[in-house]
Amino acid sequence: MEGLCHPEMKDKERIQLAHGGGGELTAELVEGVILPALGGPQRPGRLTDAAVIYAGGVKLAFTTDSYVVQPLEFPGGDIGKLSVVGTINDLSVMGAKPLAISLALVIREGLEIALLRSVLESAGRAAGEAGVSVVTGDTKVVDRDASDGLVINTTGVGLVGERASLGFDRIRTGDRIILSGPLGEHALAVMSKRRGLSFSAELVSDCASIAAPAAALLDCLGEDVHFMRDPTRGGLAAVLADLADATGRNIEIEEASIPVNRTARAAAEMLGLDLLAAANEGKLVAVVAASRAEKAVEVLARHAIAAQAAIVGTVGQAGDSPLVEMVTCIGGRRVVQRPYGEELPRIC
Amino acid sequence: MEGLCHPEMKDKERIQLAHGGGGELTAELVEGVILPALGGPQRPGRLTDAAVIYAGGVKLAFTTDSYVVQPLEFPGGDIGKLSVVGTINDLSVMGAKPLAISLALVIREGLEIALLRSVLESAGRAAGEAGVSVVTGDTKVVDRDASDGLVINTTGVGLVGERASLGFDRIRTGDRIILSGPLGEHALAVMSKRRGLSFSAELVSDCASIAAPAAALLDCLGEDVHFMRDPTRGGLAAVLADLADATGRNIEIEEASIPVNRTARAAAEMLGLDLLAAANEGKLVAVVAASRAEKAVEVLARHAIAAQAAIVGTVGQAGDSPLVEMVTCIGGRRVVQRPYGEELPRIC
Repeated sequence: MEGLCHPEMKDKERIQLAHGGGGELTAELVEGVILPALGGPQRPGRLTDAAVIYAGGVKLAFTTDSYVVQPLEFPGGDIGKLSVVGTINDLSVMGAKPLAISLALVIREGLEIALLRSVLESAGRAAGEAGVSVVTGDTKVVDRDASDGLVINTTGVGLVGERASLGFDRIRTGDRIILSGPLGEHALAVMSKRRGLSFSAELVSDCASIAAPAAALLDCLGEDVHFMRDPTRGGLAAVLADLADATGRNIEIEEASIPVNRTARAAAEMLGLDLLAAANEGKLVAVVAASRAEKAVEVLARHAIAAQAAIVGTVGQAGDSPLVEMVTCIGGRRVVQRPYGEELPRIC
Repeated sequence: MEGLCHPEMKDKERIQLAHGGGGELTAELVEGVILPALGGPQRPGRLTDAAVIYAGGVKLAFTTDSYVVQPLEFPGGDIGKLSVVGTINDLSVMGAKPLAISLALVIREGLEIALLRSVLESAGRAAGEAGVSVVTGDTKVVDRDASDGLVINTTGVGLVGERASLGFDRIRTGDRIILSGPLGEHALAVMSKRRGLSFSAELVSDCASIAAPAAALLDCLGEDVHFMRDPTRGGLAAVLADLADATGRNIEIEEASIPVNRTARAAAEMLGLDLLAAANEGKLVAVVAASRAEKAVEVLARHAIAAQAAIVGTVGQAGDSPLVEMVTCIGGRRVVQRPYGEELPRIC
């Protein structure tokens, strides 16, 4: 019996949508196929979301992302703005000041030039606001059958600040986990637009640069900031799963302390999505020394986009199979899983 | 009357395939839409194929390209190898030593994982041979209706060498134009594969790194090398048109001196394509001081991939509307136009 699936989609030897969701299947693809193929056995684990390279004694951060979001324009942003702030944010969480961005377009023939102009203006504004320039680019056009509009790749180079000493290896038991604001606004704004849902309060993507609050945190706390990441695909759940895996420590978060946008929560319930696993595009997760956690929240909250910053969790003891657990609002405990696959396709 | 065209394709306000061909229409799109949108009026002309950025006193080259070639595998290479050597070559012609490459995948669901693995292994080998690593990446998956296989973006960072002093502004009347080998092998290998053509002699893409001959040329000739470029989309014709436009000088080339692969010429004739405008992926065009031209050919020809290097032309006097002219084999003169649009779609 064939069932509903297209035959190709049942083939484990073919790529599935879920391979791109930022969850377990993505990790399998990257670790099982992409890294071994690219790096050979002598360079395992070298392909990361952002890398540090050294050039003539200077320490640089280097990061790339391709954006395939549908629709191209959504409440709070568009693919142009998203592609620029996404790369700025990836540099910022490495403790780097963005120096330059490349922007490469793959355009489907038939795309309205007015729409292209609009999203690129939006990209240019986002770059200008962050004080960084798009310095190089590329333009390809593909035929109507080959693509559905526009794919933008942005790659960024940044100068890693002297005060930044960040990495999984700097995380200690007792460290506190800070989240800069409510979860899931990007994913739910895009999904609601796509599904034609509307709500009494407007739901807009959080798509914005976190360069300023990230830099302020490092300026003020220095080496007491141990780790930073922006919770995009896979959301907070994926970041916490990475923390547990990489440090070998249990992670505990408190549901009651996690900032929530009520409209986003309503949308998540309606769409059957988990806010913890939903993508954000203007949020910061920081792991800081416990003694500086209150200060970290205070520093972040001076910035409008991090006004709702809160301490949401704690790094626990090392364990054989470290878990992420959430203490729920009613005092229960729930294991937070790494998202498996593509809960929200084409979200970024 | 509607004619054969899809209505969208007759709309000047929509993107056409020819906008991606590296010719006049691409220049119109980039200069008329992309640059003004991204840069604003205060930063005109900043978006180039490769840029120079300064980081803590270090001079870096930064370049990006998205690859959409069809088929994904072709005689002499595949999209993986192409994407890596393309970026290495873009850095090399800036006089830069490649430091690091990012590689971002947009994969259509249903792609065979074995094919993905194969092209990535090919990318990894190409990087290894050039002594550069793929240090960061991204993986997105799009649905069956949205894409036709695989798009790879590679972006590269390189350290610009101290001996490199390259730019349109360094070109002088009397400079000689060097070409490292026969034209059009990449374009014609890909097109022949796509059309199912076969020839008595094998036609393979020239897809290869030109890092070594480019570096050797700079090492030996230093500031006497005035300009370098790899003639990819738009071929030699597009590079020469850029030279004429940017320097305001006439350019003359000699047909008899241009190295030719006979199978590529036969394929070009069969397909009705112009070798001068056909894409290459392992060739170097250099503009050097006249007194060093013979030496330049000698240095290049020590490398197997530049064994057929030749002096093919001369930079002429400045003129009001500078032209590229070719002295033909029978002694006539022919104006070489900038290719207009997409002679060869999905070629790189």
